[in-house]
Amino acid sequence: MGSVTFDGKKANNLRIAYIGGGSRGWAWGLMSDLAMAPDMNGTVALYDIDYEAAAKNAIIGNNINALPDAISEFKYIATETIGEALTGADFVVISILPGTFDEMESDVHTPEKYGIWQPVGDSTGPGGIVRALRTIPMFQEIARAIREYCPDAWVINYTNPMTLSVRALYKEFPGIKAFGCCHEVFGTQKILAQLLKDRCGIEATRDEIKTNVVGINHFTWITKASYRNIDLFDIYRKHVEDWKTSHVEEIVDDNWLNKAFKSDNSVKFDLFDRYGVMAAAGDRHLAEFCEGSWYLDTPEQVMGKWHFGLTPVSWRKDILKERLARRERLVSGEETVKLAGTGEEGVRQMRAILGLADLVTNVNLPNVGQIPNLPLGAVVETNATFTADTVLPVQAGPIPLPIYNLVARISAEQEMVIEAAFNRDLELAFRAFANDPLTRLPVAEARALFDEMIENTKAYLGEYFQ
Amino acid sequence: MGSVTFDGKKANNLRIAYIGGGSRGWAWGLMSDLAMAPDMNGTVALYDIDYEAAAKNAIIGNNINALPDAISEFKYIATETIGEALTGADFVVISILPGTFDEMESDVHTPEKYGIWQPVGDSTGPGGIVRALRTIPMFQEIARAIREYCPDAWVINYTNPMTLSVRALYKEFPGIKAFGCCHEVFGTQKILAQLLKDRCGIEATRDEIKTNVVGINHFTWITKASYRNIDLFDIYRKHVEDWKTSHVEEIVDDNWLNKAFKSDNSVKFDLFDRYGVMAAAGDRHLAEFCEGSWYLDTPEQVMGKWHFGLTPVSWRKDILKERLARRERLVSGEETVKLAGTGEEGVRQMRAILGLADLVTNVNLPNVGQIPNLPLGAVVETNATFTADTVLPVQAGPIPLPIYNLVARISAEQEMVIEAAFNRDLELAFRAFANDPLTRLPVAEARALFDEMIENTKAYLGEYFQ
Amino acid sequence: MGSVTFDGKKANNLRIAYIGGGSRGWAWGLMSDLAMAPDMNGTVALYDIDYEAAAKNAIIGNNINALPDAISEFKYIATETIGEALTGADFVVISILPGTFDEMESDVHTPEKYGIWQPVGDSTGPGGIVRALRTIPMFQEIARAIREYCPDAWVINYTNPMTLSVRALYKEFPGIKAFGCCHEVFGTQKILAQLLKDRCGIEATRDEIKTNVVGINHFTWITKASYRNIDLFDIYRKHVEDWKTSHVEEIVDDNWLNKAFKSDNSVKFDLFDRYGVMAAAGDRHLAEFCEGSWYLDTPEQVMGKWHFGLTPVSWRKDILKERLARRERLVSGEETVKLAGTGEEGVRQMRAILGLADLVTNVNLPNVGQIPNLPLGAVVETNATFTADTVLPVQAGPIPLPIYNLVARISAEQEMVIEAAFNRDLELAFRAFANDPLTRLPVAEARALFDEMIENTKAYLGEYFQ
Amino acid sequence: MGSVTFDGKKANNLRIAYIGGGSRGWAWGLMSDLAMAPDMNGTVALYDIDYEAAAKNAIIGNNINALPDAISEFKYIATETIGEALTGADFVVISILPGTFDEMESDVHTPEKYGIWQPVGDSTGPGGIVRALRTIPMFQEIARAIREYCPDAWVINYTNPMTLSVRALYKEFPGIKAFGCCHEVFGTQKILAQLLKDRCGIEATRDEIKTNVVGINHFTWITKASYRNIDLFDIYRKHVEDWKTSHVEEIVDDNWLNKAFKSDNSVKFDLFDRYGVMAAAGDRHLAEFCEGSWYLDTPEQVMGKWHFGLTPVSWRKDILKERLARRERLVSGEETVKLAGTGEEGVRQMRAILGLADLVTNVNLPNVGQIPNLPLGAVVETNATFTADTVLPVQAGPIPLPIYNLVARISAEQEMVIEAAFNRDLELAFRAFANDPLTRLPVAEARALFDEMIENTKAYLGEYFQ
Repeated sequence: MGSVTFDGKKANNLRIAYIGGGSRGWAWGLMSDLAMAPDMNGTVALYDIDYEAAAKNAIIGNNINALPDAISEFKYIATETIGEALTGADFVVISILPGTFDEMESDVHTPEKYGIWQPVGDSTGPGGIVRALRTIPMFQEIARAIREYCPDAWVINYTNPMTLSVRALYKEFPGIKAFGCCHEVFGTQKILAQLLKDRCGIEATRDEIKTNVVGINHFTWITKASYRNIDLFDIYRKHVEDWKTSHVEEIVDDNWLNKAFKSDNSVKFDLFDRYGVMAAAGDRHLAEFCEGSWYLDTPEQVMGKWHFGLTPVSWRKDILKERLARRERLVSGEETVKLAGTGEEGVRQMRAILGLADLVTNVNLPNVGQIPNLPLGAVVETNATFTADTVLPVQAGPIPLPIYNLVARISAEQEMVIEAAFNRDLELAFRAFANDPLTRLPVAEARALFDEMIENTKAYLGEYFQ
Repeated sequence: MGSVTFDGKKANNLRIAYIGGGSRGWAWGLMSDLAMAPDMNGTVALYDIDYEAAAKNAIIGNNINALPDAISEFKYIATETIGEALTGADFVVISILPGTFDEMESDVHTPEKYGIWQPVGDSTGPGGIVRALRTIPMFQEIARAIREYCPDAWVINYTNPMTLSVRALYKEFPGIKAFGCCHEVFGTQKILAQLLKDRCGIEATRDEIKTNVVGINHFTWITKASYRNIDLFDIYRKHVEDWKTSHVEEIVDDNWLNKAFKSDNSVKFDLFDRYGVMAAAGDRHLAEFCEGSWYLDTPEQVMGKWHFGLTPVSWRKDILKERLARRERLVSGEETVKLAGTGEEGVRQMRAILGLADLVTNVNLPNVGQIPNLPLGAVVETNATFTADTVLPVQAGPIPLPIYNLVARISAEQEMVIEAAFNRDLELAFRAFANDPLTRLPVAEARALFDEMIENTKAYLGEYFQ
Repeated sequence: MGSVTFDGKKANNLRIAYIGGGSRGWAWGLMSDLAMAPDMNGTVALYDIDYEAAAKNAIIGNNINALPDAISEFKYIATETIGEALTGADFVVISILPGTFDEMESDVHTPEKYGIWQPVGDSTGPGGIVRALRTIPMFQEIARAIREYCPDAWVINYTNPMTLSVRALYKEFPGIKAFGCCHEVFGTQKILAQLLKDRCGIEATRDEIKTNVVGINHFTWITKASYRNIDLFDIYRKHVEDWKTSHVEEIVDDNWLNKAFKSDNSVKFDLFDRYGVMAAAGDRHLAEFCEGSWYLDTPEQVMGKWHFGLTPVSWRKDILKERLARRERLVSGEETVKLAGTGEEGVRQMRAILGLADLVTNVNLPNVGQIPNLPLGAVVETNATFTADTVLPVQAGPIPLPIYNLVARISAEQEMVIEAAFNRDLELAFRAFANDPLTRLPVAEARALFDEMIENTKAYLGEYFQ
Repeated sequence: MGSVTFDGKKANNLRIAYIGGGSRGWAWGLMSDLAMAPDMNGTVALYDIDYEAAAKNAIIGNNINALPDAISEFKYIATETIGEALTGADFVVISILPGTFDEMESDVHTPEKYGIWQPVGDSTGPGGIVRALRTIPMFQEIARAIREYCPDAWVINYTNPMTLSVRALYKEFPGIKAFGCCHEVFGTQKILAQLLKDRCGIEATRDEIKTNVVGINHFTWITKASYRNIDLFDIYRKHVEDWKTSHVEEIVDDNWLNKAFKSDNSVKFDLFDRYGVMAAAGDRHLAEFCEGSWYLDTPEQVMGKWHFGLTPVSWRKDILKERLARRERLVSGEETVKLAGTGEEGVRQMRAILGLADLVTNVNLPNVGQIPNLPLGAVVETNATFTADTVLPVQAGPIPLPIYNLVARISAEQEMVIEAAFNRDLELAFRAFANDPLTRLPVAEARALFDEMIENTKAYLGEYFQ
């Protein structure tokens, strides 16, 4: 962070590199968060394999910066090479789509032929594993570029599969200062704040709900939750008891097809009933890490009994079209972005790393012992302290025994996938694939599915076939 | 071992205490192994809660010692108290039945009402967990007696559930010198010797087949197997490929009912096909540690597809009757025991601990790091070196990633059960029970089954209700 | 913290138990810190083996509370039993003198006969070890009382030897929620703030100097120090280079006798020159953990070359007389305490644990992996996060290799002392004593010294002789 | 070991590569051990940077093989490249001199100017560290050659510094199957056998003395020693008590100059008196790992009080001349080697790895947990099991607390040296050097000594100056 200068409590000349800077949507949120920061100014260099997209986003970023209610001064530029973007960077933000929605379509929907249903398909399960196989070589390349151009920069990843993306960065460049951010836990903190209000009449912000987080991204768990001297487990337990009584099967009809992102936390509550530990991610993610028969047996079970949606990739493609149209309006100035906090913590984390305000929040980091019963080196999610040029995980304690079998198997699977991907070894990748809790297939059928998914996405898997 | 004196390569005045010394069968094998030892003499003190049974076995033991082909001199006595048996003991052998076959009948057959099939039911699964709940307090009592009467004695356990019995001994008396013996791995070594003969024309004894063992008793795995410079994994892999082609479903008819202990290793070979690691226990045990749907879905699947028997406890009761009749004949001298090695390693282990001949073999010991990715303190099975007054585990290496989810979940379950049993906490025991891979039930049904099994066996669970 | 109620951002009905509440001095500081807290009200129960002293302090506390500039409302009571003080406590503060200054006189000055010089003698070295032997049984008793009367209370220890006091609490009652506080690291943060001002012209508060702390109390080290984007190691390194040039031997004359607490950080700077890591405690403590010849060879070396004072216990006795006189004036109201922050963090820590404001600071806690290369269970000092009902250590990383030999030997020594004290085993205690870096004696002389020190203090070592 | 064929219990076509095969002496011992093996035949390929020396040894080897009492058939060849020697090798033996005796002269004698006395100077201390700096790059090169030519071969190292040589092999090629052999522990086993005879009248061979070994090569310790049911610690303790009474200072006169290798175990016994653990290497090695003032303060103290010799390198040079002359006689046939076992275990280890007879013995291997309180990856010495194609360390347990400070500091120092050498970083090497227990110098003097030693040996340190 050598170029940054401070003027009182304000950091100037900050340099942010954004890999995947041609993003259709997410980038605009980061831009508006930056615009609202009262204590930072600088430059954001957008790099994308689609240079045109980055260039359009540079215009949008500069438009946002010019809004009357923008507080900070940030200049946006697009770069033609990753090296230009990274040179001199204090922070690197990575948010890419590994491949296109066509590959994602194969990840999510090919397994359906074998009765495997995935509401998201980007983190784990057959879809998540194949996505990881094409993502990891990309992250190796990014890690090498960071080592070359800005080895001291702080790197914030938002790409899924989160765990294996961060794992790849560290495995390729062990000295990297990277972490992965995800907002899923915030949702559970909001549920707890709501229950506190409903059941005790106490108003609290999400920030005031203190949680100890352990686990793996999208399969995170809360082992302690407090508001001041109130143990929120007691309140949650009562809520789950009530939910058991009131929870009913719904009739699944055509309306459900429009509820791609719906969820009423039934999976979360059921997991608490079984294990006594709070699952902290959204139901659509949680379900994918559990034995397939539990929450993802059939679409009818998913929607009728567990009340969440299976997001079709066609839906994502439709949304993308709308976003591309919106992009043109934002570039032309026909439409302007409304400045409202996104709820993401990226800018708060930068502020803390700049030494302007401490922060404790949950992030994804290699395990150096913060979860003593998961493998050292595996990327895990726990709280961490953010302060001047420092991010250190908090000792979160072991994965509780009742859920150990759930979490440890995923961690072992991920360790196999990273090994397979670094060695471009599809045989080992298949061992992980066949052993995934969603796969539930005899070996021969698992093999057929795997081969088909690899074939479908091989445009992005070239290195595995050299 | 203060009382032992040596005369050249012979140990005299050895004192062995046998807890469960009224055993109907197993004791006679140990007696014949001792009778054939060329280098030991001494006294065996038999203690049993059924004193009469111990007294009869003392007669049988002395009869065996008097056989013309008996080599050693061992005197057998029955004691009325455990303290008399243990006082002065150099070795303590524990081989008890926790409860009676009536309790075992509940363990094995009550879960069948819920579609849960258990071929053995003494190590894991619903039956193994409930059996553990009544066994652990008994082993706490034994551990306290050993601490009082013979804290320096070496303790050899043969009782199931093996892991939790040994775990209880160490948790109650951390300074105990105990280990658990099991012959299941020997079976796999014999299979390997047979394959070596069939496929390479090489004759080798079981002892010459060198294996590296990792895992938990009855769910042990082999990660390396060699005969001289031959890697036995290559041969095994070819055999499993052939098995996949030739393996057929059998028709299950009445004949199967007599095949209570049958097994043709189909489970072992299928596990190798999935994971690339050799499972080392017998199929009837292995199946119980896996997801219920794999090998124990229905009796038809068990027998027809996987070719092993479900042992009804009624069969054990029938055998018991025969043994009681045989006992009378052995006491009266109407029948004599034939001296032939049992294949158990107990006597070889004693010989090594006496410093007469080194031995490396697989046993059950608390994990002090020999399996780095299982919890410290949990009882695990690996090779160990046996030498003068010393038993130390060999660094067996981690559980391989492909099978980590299988083994780690069992280890976590066992850690929950030992905690539950030491605290006489049936709620925590139920968490483990509901999470067992065989249980596969909604929480409410799991609860009903658990309550029924506890009720059935509560004569031996008194301490949980105080 | 069941009794606490909140009124907006204010905690009422707080209940604090103070063990050693008859303290002559330190208590008055805590009282004034509490009086200045804008967000807490409650009761402080003072318990002391000297009830009269506690009763006088209750009067002083109530006098402080009645001062016009006192913000909070705290009521002080003295209790005749420890149980009365602890019952209902939300926080327990422990600050006792183990024995009297007569015992401390033996601890510090008896070793001088053998050429062993100790500037403090309360943490390590011959004096610290013997002090620990009489302190540990006292802390076992306190731990048992807390388990009985207020097992959920948060326990803050200020007593030396810090490490072994906290270790004893956890070893006796593993479920205790205790930590140890020490302000030594703050001093180094202040030095860094001063250097930042002197060398860069930047004004920063101690709180803004961010440090990563590893080590053992009074032998703590800083492995990273930052102010915003400035690496303070660069500045410190330059300062030490300058110090090496300017550092001179002083002539030791009678004036030195009045400089009992003097120190100019020469030890700290010399250690940085040798190892490249910042030692974080005061020189008088640091010197006691190093090989005796380095900084404590002779009084002339101590004062002339290393520029710090050897505090005679007679000086402490003199000060005590002054304090007793002052106590009478404070009780009578003849003198009043001036309300000014003490700089201790006790009240800030309570505030954070009440959920009113998060805090990250360095404290002493059992090692659960926060320092991966020190023994698990040993008490270590690192940063920790304080939040609602939660204190969790930050993953501070390993002790750097260059200083590993210094720190690991002390940790091993402490593990021997705690083992010795719990078993009332003076032989094992002597092994630790003879192996201490200050001892530097042939075994026979070490034994004579040890025996004399034990004899001198045996009024407080009764349990070792039963 | 693909080329080996078995004829009953005999292994034929064995291929051994010997790096350093021009050895003047040690090789002849290995040759005679091989000649006496009843169960091995094959070829030994000798490689040396001095080809002539290897060629002469090939002749000597073939002469030995032709002796009438040679049992096995081994053919010796010299190769001009390392690749030729390694291609097809089943075993690789490494025994080299890193540099010449001129460099060793600097290692051992330059520090004497600063009052630092080293009896050996090849393992630790200033001499050992500088020797390691030139050895490690050589072992990196050897490791790369093994990876290229015979990655599956078993590698046996005899070169000092043992620990860092083996460490370098594994760090450069993690998949290597290497271990380090040293006979120092055997000497202590012989002492114990002698005491058993002297004090109990029992005759036992070294093999029957069972010891548990922990530590670092040349600084190894025995934590348990048994013969059958006799605890040898009791006997040893009595012996040390007697030694304390009878041990006297000797007058050092000119006779001492001829006692270069003398030692009467006074260091070993003194260490037992202090710590209660048996030191297992020879006194001349042990002394070098301890604080300099203890056993190596002055030559008078070394010889008069501790009764061992300081071996001058001139002595080694003289011996070398004799050996070169003997070599000529062995080549010409003027002299023949007498076949008598050397007592080294190399051939027994090969036999066990070939699967012909199991062996448990102490060797140097990377720590995978066999010593839980030393760093993972550091090379440590413990017992290991040798069997078919497998060498696995035995769980030896932690370094006992009383000696932890001694051993852990050396391990940390070695971890610094390996890091320094791999990064060709003389600054970090100096940190380790200045911190060595023998160095005992102010930083400036330590620097001057280090610089001089590096200058003296820079012919072999070229890579550090690129």
